[in-house]
Amino acid sequence: MDIIPIILAGGSGTRLWPRSRQAMPKQFLNFTSANSLLVDTVLRMSGDARFSAPVVSSAAEHGFLVARELAAAGIQPKAILVEPEKRNTAPAISAAARYLCDASGEDAILCIVPADHIVGDAPALRRAIVEGAAAAARGFIVMIGIKPAEAATGYGYIEAGEPITDHARKVKRFVEKPDLATAERFLGEGRFLWNAGMFIARAGTILSEMRKLCPDVASAAEAALAAAKTGNLIKLDQASFAKSPSISFDYAVMEKTSLAAVVPADIGWTDIGSWSALRDISDKDGDGNSIRGDVYASNCHDCLMESDGRLLVALGLEQLAIVQTRDATLVAPLNRAQDLSAAVAALKDKGRPEIASHTKVHRPWGWYDSLFQAPGYQVKELMIAPGEAISLQLHRHRSEHWVVLSGEARVTRNNEVFTLRPGQSTVIPVGARHRAENPGTGELHIIEVQLGDYLGEDDIVRFEDRYNRI
Amino acid sequence: MDIIPIILAGGSGTRLWPRSRQAMPKQFLNFTSANSLLVDTVLRMSGDARFSAPVVSSAAEHGFLVARELAAAGIQPKAILVEPEKRNTAPAISAAARYLCDASGEDAILCIVPADHIVGDAPALRRAIVEGAAAAARGFIVMIGIKPAEAATGYGYIEAGEPITDHARKVKRFVEKPDLATAERFLGEGRFLWNAGMFIARAGTILSEMRKLCPDVASAAEAALAAAKTGNLIKLDQASFAKSPSISFDYAVMEKTSLAAVVPADIGWTDIGSWSALRDISDKDGDGNSIRGDVYASNCHDCLMESDGRLLVALGLEQLAIVQTRDATLVAPLNRAQDLSAAVAALKDKGRPEIASHTKVHRPWGWYDSLFQAPGYQVKELMIAPGEAISLQLHRHRSEHWVVLSGEARVTRNNEVFTLRPGQSTVIPVGARHRAENPGTGELHIIEVQLGDYLGEDDIVRFEDRYNRI
Repeated sequence: MDIIPIILAGGSGTRLWPRSRQAMPKQFLNFTSANSLLVDTVLRMSGDARFSAPVVSSAAEHGFLVARELAAAGIQPKAILVEPEKRNTAPAISAAARYLCDASGEDAILCIVPADHIVGDAPALRRAIVEGAAAAARGFIVMIGIKPAEAATGYGYIEAGEPITDHARKVKRFVEKPDLATAERFLGEGRFLWNAGMFIARAGTILSEMRKLCPDVASAAEAALAAAKTGNLIKLDQASFAKSPSISFDYAVMEKTSLAAVVPADIGWTDIGSWSALRDISDKDGDGNSIRGDVYASNCHDCLMESDGRLLVALGLEQLAIVQTRDATLVAPLNRAQDLSAAVAALKDKGRPEIASHTKVHRPWGWYDSLFQAPGYQVKELMIAPGEAISLQLHRHRSEHWVVLSGEARVTRNNEVFTLRPGQSTVIPVGARHRAENPGTGELHIIEVQLGDYLGEDDIVRFEDRYNRI
Repeated sequence: MDIIPIILAGGSGTRLWPRSRQAMPKQFLNFTSANSLLVDTVLRMSGDARFSAPVVSSAAEHGFLVARELAAAGIQPKAILVEPEKRNTAPAISAAARYLCDASGEDAILCIVPADHIVGDAPALRRAIVEGAAAAARGFIVMIGIKPAEAATGYGYIEAGEPITDHARKVKRFVEKPDLATAERFLGEGRFLWNAGMFIARAGTILSEMRKLCPDVASAAEAALAAAKTGNLIKLDQASFAKSPSISFDYAVMEKTSLAAVVPADIGWTDIGSWSALRDISDKDGDGNSIRGDVYASNCHDCLMESDGRLLVALGLEQLAIVQTRDATLVAPLNRAQDLSAAVAALKDKGRPEIASHTKVHRPWGWYDSLFQAPGYQVKELMIAPGEAISLQLHRHRSEHWVVLSGEARVTRNNEVFTLRPGQSTVIPVGARHRAENPGTGELHIIEVQLGDYLGEDDIVRFEDRYNRI
């Protein structure tokens, strides 16, 4: 048997803001493990002969991050498909199924899993997938149904019906986020399972069901793949992809198909959909507090407290989430997760940069980190990865002063090219064409002091860019 | 009549941490006014012919700050007395009384007030002081007794006895921090007043009572004044001053003297002795929140929320203090002020720099602000005031890169002297003797990037320092 994982890494949730941002959603963060959720998701289905290399589906802005994360973990994916726009899961799954049907045939068994969940018991997950694959081979679209641990009201439920195989049952119906009384009844009755957003099916089954049940999604996604730009990343064609409605695979297919099946599983699953859920699965001190970073807590109970880089003093608190990052801090009761989504939406409407990204922004060439900003100047740290370079560019409104911290910089400044080593510095005047390259084998770190009346990222004229950003 | 204010500015409280720090206690901060508490305290008793220029008593580390604050406000003090060590209020008052007895005679009427309180009704305060001065002229030591606004348990109470003048009464007894039942009884009875730490007396009365009631304080403080270094600041002699016990004027004199009197007053007084007290007197929104800085609050009630320079998002909170500064954040219930003192003491024991000072540190020549620190480097902003200079110095473990943001820098580097203007930069290699001066009439701002394996402030060899720090 050869099961091909499709990893859905295109999400951009707000429920763990300010740790997660649009530019760095939770699949790229690490929580209970040293790896990112994405890498752990991939590793969970590797090293097992029954599983082959994955296809990863990514949002446009995160394609290079997916590639870098996988490369750093030594993972060679079958492909990375890049969605040019956010259109929810249905078109992403359609394109991936089309890709694998072409590459591996319509009988290939696909296992579609989100990149941003935690699974405590990976062998149990693999066992459940293999169990589901038997029903998938017979033409079903099989979901992993999580045995409920509590009367949760925040999940969708699947009611299991008549048996298909030893392990799989037909889906009788879906119930989205029940009230508490209903959830308590479900917990008692035993045949209701949480929908974890994981699906196992033949490539051909998915394609034919999508063509039948959501033909507008299927035709847009398949056309986007046919017209994709291929390379390190397979970039789906934007014009075609944009014709798809934005819809989840659950709504577009699962709630309509007669082929829905479910395999009950007990795999230590959580979607860490809130700070409260994260606290639940984290290590806690004797007072029930989950603490990370530079925190001094006294007489606090059942709190989640995190600090990135500055002292947090918390006194006499109960059941609060306090999450302090370099540019934003959240303080809210752990049981008020819904308020956070509304606040993030309101702040996004105000155009607050703290919603879009961290002070540290990843780029194809490395990253920059805004250390400090004030009227008239800004200080950044740049990291240029080995062999990489920023584009040949100029700024009309700012001069830049570079001090090399570590590594070796090859600097182009108008017609000069010269090398700077740690402790050396140079000036890039307003209007000078310039570039910094890292010709070495280690990281190049530079402190950049920008001076000018306007310091926005959009004051840039690019002449040459190896990442095709001109 | 000529009343001479003595402003006690030597305190270093912890109750408003992290806004106040050891290096920047609350008398140097502003709260409900644009001025610091110190400046408002002085201004409250100026512009009135009955009051003369003040004597200000300061802790050693804050002498230059007092001088700078007063100069910026256009205030010419009679003198600034600098206490070489913290010894509470009794020796500070003794030295100031001795100074004014010498300068103005033993009949001079002194009015001693703390520099870190808020008084809402300054005319009422001046009226009460003038009323007290009449009794002081007759040899009493007169306290301002605040008419209680509530049954507070955190203050000391004065019980007023028989009348001396139209306004002043003898003090019958002192009651320190009563329990709630007692405080409620006091509030009902009407003759109990809060002790605001303000005293009016003849210079000669204070000297003679101190020589009688606390001769060890009086002899140490008077000897410290006799051996003081005079100049812009009058620096009391450390060896003499250190012989005084550390004791308050209340304990050393007021609880023992037979000359204690009190003038009841209603002056809108608070010692802002807690975040809760600050919230009480601050402007509040319709939900009872006092908000300052970049704060997004939703569904919060009766909170104090402050943020210095980064976004704070507060959701669904009640009666919390959240105070976010550049390097430290406090989250605590407003009614748990006592926990804060214990936490600050514990953090001080751990040697945490966040207790000692802000990232911005004031120096006689201007200030520096630590913008960012990481292993191997640190970025600071320096402000050198017009006509000032840092000492001629060298560092054994770090190089420094200077970029001038604004103003003009005269740089000494080994045997060279050169000028840098905005946008120009230079390097100070490890071991190079160097100095930066501001020869101009505006502020000089420099970004300093330090590189090295050790970046502590104590890696400094000073060769020449106009502030006598060698």
